[in-house]
Amino acid sequence: MKLSANLTQLISSLRCLPGIGPKSAQRIAFHLLERDREGGTQLGHALTNAMNKVGHCQTCRTFCEEPICELCQNPKRIDSGLLCVVESPSDVLAIEQTAQFAGRYFVLMGHLSPLDGIGPNEIGLDELELQFAKGDIQEVILATNPTVEGETTAHYIAELCQKYQISASRIAHGVPVGGELDLVDGKTLAHAFNGRKVVAID
Amino acid sequence: MKLSANLTQLISSLRCLPGIGPKSAQRIAFHLLERDREGGTQLGHALTNAMNKVGHCQTCRTFCEEPICELCQNPKRIDSGLLCVVESPSDVLAIEQTAQFAGRYFVLMGHLSPLDGIGPNEIGLDELELQFAKGDIQEVILATNPTVEGETTAHYIAELCQKYQISASRIAHGVPVGGELDLVDGKTLAHAFNGRKVVAID
Repeated sequence: MKLSANLTQLISSLRCLPGIGPKSAQRIAFHLLERDREGGTQLGHALTNAMNKVGHCQTCRTFCEEPICELCQNPKRIDSGLLCVVESPSDVLAIEQTAQFAGRYFVLMGHLSPLDGIGPNEIGLDELELQFAKGDIQEVILATNPTVEGETTAHYIAELCQKYQISASRIAHGVPVGGELDLVDGKTLAHAFNGRKVVAID
Repeated sequence: MKLSANLTQLISSLRCLPGIGPKSAQRIAFHLLERDREGGTQLGHALTNAMNKVGHCQTCRTFCEEPICELCQNPKRIDSGLLCVVESPSDVLAIEQTAQFAGRYFVLMGHLSPLDGIGPNEIGLDELELQFAKGDIQEVILATNPTVEGETTAHYIAELCQKYQISASRIAHGVPVGGELDLVDGKTLAHAFNGRKVVAID
């Protein structure tokens, strides 16, 4: 039995979603057709719209539908002189939810990975250097992921900062708040010991 | 920080996929925008096409883009006098893959569930009765799921068959092939014992 052309096309297109194999794709397609055609139609329009209209901010490279994003237009954030470098737009979202940072961002959209052909220009470090050269940034906070590639990227940007005499800091590694000590891996625990702080007693 | 309108719309629309919560929806939206815009666009078109064009076969109710599906048009299958009743189009696909059945299907698109307001007419049993009345069906194979609702539905259809003097059979329950006996639940094992067959030695 052959499935109809549009159904086959839908099942194979669903494979582009992360973690969806042939069996899940079929299950999703059948679910939408059987129980949620309205939702499926809406998702179709939303995908077409988002893929066509969502671009990147010309300053920080995050997702944005205007030339410059809301955060980059905010004069308070520009005046702060702080720039946080992250790997992806979801990191911006996570940091914004903490409400702890009031500077601007720069989104690399990846990390240095020479073996995959991703060099400094592929992650926008040329644009970042132009921003450094303007001289209105006092501190760069390196918030790339704590992976080998993330650390390498952070190190590379730190060297770039040194060239322009900008102070560069790396976010702290340590034991996550609310976690249990015996479930934390050795490397993190070692970082937690090395980064220990004196307990201040008032 | 507010996400752009189309991105927000995409994230909320993705929630219609089964098993996708707010965090996964965001992860999928960002993944598509960062790494697979082409796939996302294609999926958008595929969804719109499938939701608009895939309908139901007028005879067996499975998914189909023509008025009558390929299987229902096949004269060999019509002449077989066999009708297999299943709950969903994916069951048709699963049975077709075994290549063991050469009759027609009838897809209920659900099962009897009076508490949810799903009675005989909601699962097309009125249409099924019309087919029974024509008199060209010799045997009905009840392949609804082995759940309480599936069994109830099978029982209801078996009674309908009796009314039209059509033989009705239920697919066998037992130990799955390739499984391990100690991992099989008690009810299945009880079915396997009750349904035991004499070993034929040639």
